[in-house]
Amino acid sequence: MALTPARTAPGVMELLPLEQIAFQEMLDTVRRNFERFGFLPIETPVMEFSDVLLTKQGGETERQVYFVQSTGALAASDKGPGKPELALRFDLTVPLARYVAEHENELTFPFRRYQIQRVYRGERAQRGRFREFYQCDIDVIGKDHLSIRYDAEIPAVIYSVFRDLAIGPFTIRINNRKILRGVMEVLNLDAEKQAVVLREIDKVDKIGANGVFNSLQALGLDSNTITSLMSTLLSTKDENVRAKLRAEGKDPNQDALQRLRDPMWTGSHVLQQGVNELSDVIALLPAFGVPASFFAIDFSIARGLDYYTGTVYETTLNEHPQIGSICSGGRYDNLAANYTKSHLPGVGISIGATRLFWQLREAKLLGLAESTVKVLVTQMDEAQLPAYLELAAILRNAGIATEVVMEAGKLGKQFKHADRAGIRFVVVLGPDEIAKGVVTVKDMRKQDQFEVPRAELVKALRVELEQAAAMK
Amino acid sequence: MALTPARTAPGVMELLPLEQIAFQEMLDTVRRNFERFGFLPIETPVMEFSDVLLTKQGGETERQVYFVQSTGALAASDKGPGKPELALRFDLTVPLARYVAEHENELTFPFRRYQIQRVYRGERAQRGRFREFYQCDIDVIGKDHLSIRYDAEIPAVIYSVFRDLAIGPFTIRINNRKILRGVMEVLNLDAEKQAVVLREIDKVDKIGANGVFNSLQALGLDSNTITSLMSTLLSTKDENVRAKLRAEGKDPNQDALQRLRDPMWTGSHVLQQGVNELSDVIALLPAFGVPASFFAIDFSIARGLDYYTGTVYETTLNEHPQIGSICSGGRYDNLAANYTKSHLPGVGISIGATRLFWQLREAKLLGLAESTVKVLVTQMDEAQLPAYLELAAILRNAGIATEVVMEAGKLGKQFKHADRAGIRFVVVLGPDEIAKGVVTVKDMRKQDQFEVPRAELVKALRVELEQAAAMK
Repeated sequence: MALTPARTAPGVMELLPLEQIAFQEMLDTVRRNFERFGFLPIETPVMEFSDVLLTKQGGETERQVYFVQSTGALAASDKGPGKPELALRFDLTVPLARYVAEHENELTFPFRRYQIQRVYRGERAQRGRFREFYQCDIDVIGKDHLSIRYDAEIPAVIYSVFRDLAIGPFTIRINNRKILRGVMEVLNLDAEKQAVVLREIDKVDKIGANGVFNSLQALGLDSNTITSLMSTLLSTKDENVRAKLRAEGKDPNQDALQRLRDPMWTGSHVLQQGVNELSDVIALLPAFGVPASFFAIDFSIARGLDYYTGTVYETTLNEHPQIGSICSGGRYDNLAANYTKSHLPGVGISIGATRLFWQLREAKLLGLAESTVKVLVTQMDEAQLPAYLELAAILRNAGIATEVVMEAGKLGKQFKHADRAGIRFVVVLGPDEIAKGVVTVKDMRKQDQFEVPRAELVKALRVELEQAAAMK
Repeated sequence: MALTPARTAPGVMELLPLEQIAFQEMLDTVRRNFERFGFLPIETPVMEFSDVLLTKQGGETERQVYFVQSTGALAASDKGPGKPELALRFDLTVPLARYVAEHENELTFPFRRYQIQRVYRGERAQRGRFREFYQCDIDVIGKDHLSIRYDAEIPAVIYSVFRDLAIGPFTIRINNRKILRGVMEVLNLDAEKQAVVLREIDKVDKIGANGVFNSLQALGLDSNTITSLMSTLLSTKDENVRAKLRAEGKDPNQDALQRLRDPMWTGSHVLQQGVNELSDVIALLPAFGVPASFFAIDFSIARGLDYYTGTVYETTLNEHPQIGSICSGGRYDNLAANYTKSHLPGVGISIGATRLFWQLREAKLLGLAESTVKVLVTQMDEAQLPAYLELAAILRNAGIATEVVMEAGKLGKQFKHADRAGIRFVVVLGPDEIAKGVVTVKDMRKQDQFEVPRAELVKALRVELEQAAAMK
């Protein structure tokens, strides 16, 4: 029989078991923190009706959508054209809007939900670009009204997640879209110019301040406008400037806000509204437990143009700026205008876990994986199999993940299996041990071993496992 | 603007948050037990290449497959026919076969994996039938060879999972396909008849023994053959017969095996091989910790015709036989013959979690859900918001999931929210409490409350939460 080559479709991340364990730990850490902050889980189907999914989109999004057809529908469509009835979700926000509108009368507002699921985009195939990837989202949705205080809770969640992920120091960058709108308004830039200007400003890390200046000049902006724009929006990006302010005993965030209270800017109502909101958010962060070194106002953060209307967030790893934002989001004025007349303002963030995991692995920031299996019970003597199985049953009932070698083989080979598989402890029950009523426990990591009475094995292993967990 | 009606596609199970929490607890329990037995996690992409997914299928399976096309591919296909390049997986077994073949050189055998993901089938829309549903699978895959002992480990996992799910007494029914083949062989039934006979036997719960007898007669079998068949295959199904044997001091499983060692059956090599394998499996179950009351030989279990070659399992809830098998599987001779020349025998089971959850809910077997959120910090005085937030930060850092009321309102309304949302404990910090340096904790379940010094709140809540968890 001819064999079919076993292969995955391009643009997916498929992992070997030890990598999958590391990835699962990442998702578990995210989920644990989302739950700690009182967010409730929901899951939505991967397939939605195409007309529900694609209400307002068009352009880029629709070009990337995967459509779904059952065999029957496919046969029918041969007879004529027409868009398939179903499509795969491309984010978790549109399904959230549909969910909230559909279940509006059964939900309590503010509705706080988390959702950790995969989404699908027909991206161009390219290293590090995924067509299937996890998003980890939280959102708080209000009805008619949502306090700005929720905007201050979001950075607390971000801080808690990335502190626990332990992938190095990070900065939560916060801005308010009203400030950007106000600055543009004061400088008399029309909506079309605004979009282009923000895109150029966004390139500063790549092309430098001079590069941005030249680009803006090429767009026809005069030098004064460019200088005002750049000094305002990019000043907060410069870590040297921030360090200097701190050395002078000043708070860089308060300094940034103060500069926008200058008469040059006070004429714009929307700008001052943005400044007040941002000021309120920043003021609450200490009570939320976010240390000052982990957040910073950054007036250059824009996060796309259409969607966000107030607070916006990006998060970067201080030592790996090239990775870009690892957690982004913001405040939006109305979640589900396409499905309901209710006014549903919200604020939320998203972590692209698949891309993040892939990038951390590329940057060699992921530690050595240890297996979910903690103990391997070896087999020295086939006749003792029931004894091995009973030992394993005791460990498993105590919640200790245990594998049993089912067929006798050389003990060295069994140790080698534990080593390769990342199993930390190996239990040996040979004739000597049986005679003495003990078991030998070998710690593969420490290359150390000890004997313990059979009745005390669970207790001894629990101590070892707690120590190992504490050292992580 | 015209609104799009917010609705899900038919055949999906979408849950409200408290139901989702209960479902998530079910999946977590399954996962915890899979891990305890040393199974390693993998995840595969929801989309596979159509030619990889549909190598051997055809007929029923292919008719139910969902095909996937990006917008670009869809436009191209207008120009001509052809099967789409991608399709959604319809089970986790074909992706496992592809995974093992693709990563064969990177895996250690026996390869023990668990996988908890959703699969897709274009089922006829019908109450209780799902087009998107979770499967929770474990499999052990050997290279060239896999000890029968692994067949005995599987019931230990099943026992452990359903014991922890606590949905009532259950029976793991075990058979061996070689016995069925042998019985048919001895009775001179050809392959075509075998399929029909097994299908009729399978209906005994619905149409009764007389019904089966009549059906088999209508198929042209003679009375002697029918009597032999039915007395052999259905004897083990009758709980009254089993109870009578136990009352006589006999083990019904050993009795069943003994009957197949009668000269009538010893001529069939394959039958005796099946009897020996089944005997070996049953003999190991006590050492694996499976109590005798939780498993039973059932010679009528067949589990489809093509796939399984040895041990087969079904699991039923003793008090809810109408639900049918809640966990099924078996031994197969060669996992990935379509993708690799390696001989990869395996044994595994699958739990259809979505259907199971739905049925347990229908049968009112699911307890009242409690929220993942354990504490609601109320707000009495806006000026004290930082104090409320700091209290919440302390609780969250101690791992206690906490929601804070962000805007002052009537305390009664805040209690009502906790009650509706299934939040067990409410913390009140009003002027009296602040003056005394305490907080009031209200237990919404017990409708009881107590005061505790602020510094001891975490400790007090931990005690309460541990008690609550222990009582579940």
